[in-house]
Amino acid sequence: MSAAPATITFLSDYGVADEYAGVCHAVIARRCPPARVIDLTHGIPPGDVRAGAIVLRGALPYAPAGVHLAVVDPGVGGPRRAVALRTGARAGGEQRLLVGPDNGLLMPAAARFGGASEAVALEASSERLQPASPTFHGRDIFAPVAAALACGAALQDVGEPLDPALLIGLDLPEAHRAAGGLVAHALHHDRFGNVMLDATPAQLDELAIDEGAEVAVFVGDAGHRACRAAAFSQVARGEMVLYVDGLGLVALAVNGGSARAQLGIDNGDELRIAPGTGT
Amino acid sequence: MSAAPATITFLSDYGVADEYAGVCHAVIARRCPPARVIDLTHGIPPGDVRAGAIVLRGALPYAPAGVHLAVVDPGVGGPRRAVALRTGARAGGEQRLLVGPDNGLLMPAAARFGGASEAVALEASSERLQPASPTFHGRDIFAPVAAALACGAALQDVGEPLDPALLIGLDLPEAHRAAGGLVAHALHHDRFGNVMLDATPAQLDELAIDEGAEVAVFVGDAGHRACRAAAFSQVARGEMVLYVDGLGLVALAVNGGSARAQLGIDNGDELRIAPGTGT
Amino acid sequence: MSAAPATITFLSDYGVADEYAGVCHAVIARRCPPARVIDLTHGIPPGDVRAGAIVLRGALPYAPAGVHLAVVDPGVGGPRRAVALRTGARAGGEQRLLVGPDNGLLMPAAARFGGASEAVALEASSERLQPASPTFHGRDIFAPVAAALACGAALQDVGEPLDPALLIGLDLPEAHRAAGGLVAHALHHDRFGNVMLDATPAQLDELAIDEGAEVAVFVGDAGHRACRAAAFSQVARGEMVLYVDGLGLVALAVNGGSARAQLGIDNGDELRIAPGTGT
Repeated sequence: MSAAPATITFLSDYGVADEYAGVCHAVIARRCPPARVIDLTHGIPPGDVRAGAIVLRGALPYAPAGVHLAVVDPGVGGPRRAVALRTGARAGGEQRLLVGPDNGLLMPAAARFGGASEAVALEASSERLQPASPTFHGRDIFAPVAAALACGAALQDVGEPLDPALLIGLDLPEAHRAAGGLVAHALHHDRFGNVMLDATPAQLDELAIDEGAEVAVFVGDAGHRACRAAAFSQVARGEMVLYVDGLGLVALAVNGGSARAQLGIDNGDELRIAPGTGT
Repeated sequence: MSAAPATITFLSDYGVADEYAGVCHAVIARRCPPARVIDLTHGIPPGDVRAGAIVLRGALPYAPAGVHLAVVDPGVGGPRRAVALRTGARAGGEQRLLVGPDNGLLMPAAARFGGASEAVALEASSERLQPASPTFHGRDIFAPVAAALACGAALQDVGEPLDPALLIGLDLPEAHRAAGGLVAHALHHDRFGNVMLDATPAQLDELAIDEGAEVAVFVGDAGHRACRAAAFSQVARGEMVLYVDGLGLVALAVNGGSARAQLGIDNGDELRIAPGTGT
Repeated sequence: MSAAPATITFLSDYGVADEYAGVCHAVIARRCPPARVIDLTHGIPPGDVRAGAIVLRGALPYAPAGVHLAVVDPGVGGPRRAVALRTGARAGGEQRLLVGPDNGLLMPAAARFGGASEAVALEASSERLQPASPTFHGRDIFAPVAAALACGAALQDVGEPLDPALLIGLDLPEAHRAAGGLVAHALHHDRFGNVMLDATPAQLDELAIDEGAEVAVFVGDAGHRACRAAAFSQVARGEMVLYVDGLGLVALAVNGGSARAQLGIDNGDELRIAPGTGT
């Protein structure tokens, strides 16, 4: 880490109605005043570790190498570990420092940068605020540790050594082939009602669902017609489009509307995608 | 542009539930680390170019001269242009650099600073991330171009020259006189339920609706009593007030309540304002 | 105040759907470009001075000493004063500069730092924007005054001297003992549905409600079982927990759910807490 402080990115499920994210910013400003903090989002659905992990994984490659603070932590105050980790150095790759709960949240993002090569447990970190509240580790443990790292503290000095192999992984669902198409799941959705799926572009290719192809999307027995295209503006207003989104995820959108509402699905729900009109 | 980076303001309809605005911040921090970014708002209703244009126009005079990034872009991935423009130099006025989709969003704000005097098309900008996603031009085109401009890149170096006369304008509704008063439209509303109209203070003056005057507000056949005042706290709790808001727009509010809910109107709806009690 | 600008914290009920908080940032950046602004939250319920005061009081000890801008201002444009104040110097304590409406919002926070030792009225501040809108003092009075103070202006130079004894206080409810337990009130709630009460940890101790103890929570006649614990993750999913939150407030939560929804209460509502199962 150079003499200039590292940039800190910050993702959480704290929302913006409350002061939780703001107080973490305040704590960081006290511990490492020159550190810049970039809020990725605080809008992860409360306690949705999987959604947080997917968003973090997608956002980090766009962020400056530095410290990445992430808090989606339904188990705060329980036995789960608080951790900081360094990602492995791939050929020509960037190293990143990730800080957050050891519940799988950090792991898909870490995997993008070679996985965790070094880790520390933060329960007894010398950087934590004291007394540390059992319900607000973002303020009392994660934010001050992230700030210390941004200001140049060494990873081994902010916690107890922890074998990276002990870090908790995260199982993400995977779409699979089934009679007549692909069984996929809604991973996440956004403000516009776009729904991200666990299918891969390669799986669409296997089914010969190319740009311009018609597809049928089934939620239970209800079928919906869609068209594969590069962008929602390429179909008529109100029509559904199957596309590869800005993170490389296969997603469903309705031009000028909400795919989530039109399909009536929520994160984790299963749907089936079939080539053609599905009849 | 001086050696110190310009401030970037940022307005969008990305919301704060998702990471879209945060990822744009991240991209800016990679391209122009010292640039400061001020979020004007990301709460423009999804795809509401008109609301975005009105808010941008009202906010820019309060912002430092610099780069103004704005993304309300329902046509992303379609034929609409991506543009950056410089506003004209009026006597003693400030020049501004505006970056965003060519769908009218930028034009009312540009008009406040002398209109567009120079423009470039950004589709093939050397600053864009590659590959550029067809659905996330904020991250892949607009943010890196705004960052480059903030760090001193010349406008002509970030895109292809474009005749400013070709930029798409925006038609905003205008209130007009009609029998018994003024026919106006709701342009926008805020968190407090205050409703901004397309009427002008001069139009109220023509109707002799001065401070303290009673007015009737009709939505369809339903009439509501209001009073013109300088601020909502000058009428009793629960009463409706017609006032000139902080942006100079004629607006309706309910002291301690929501004019939008009480009137039952949404952006774009028509209403009629008449002096007196309307009976 | 040193040569480096002070950090400004900013709390309001402006929400994030509108540009109000962003425009205040813009105004600050024009008046004091190097000042850093930390948004504590803009999600205080509209006009809820009491919720704003409680959040501000809880957040300020975590923030760097500096300027603290707070705007929850239902009386804007009416007779209430606009003020800035300096907190008293306690032994070894930090002085803070608070800026906002004189409606009680600032006083509980000021009390944490020795109370107001010096104050000025801002109506005719030389720092205000002109003309000052009667409905947007955040932009036109409070933000430019906060920026001036952050850049080193002296308190007495930004307004007219005001006897601190004239500042308006804020009455906060207090839980009290009653037959069979404690009568308390909901002060505030957060995104997770956690409900903060006006009871104190000492009041729980008096009733021998220790960690692990069962309690009954009554809203009207409806009783709910809860357990005192250090964190919500220490009870089973769906169960209610009575705990001391990160601000030291007695609060109710449901592990993986919403205490606010389960109890059906809102800010200000009364509830009764009794040791044991309440039967």
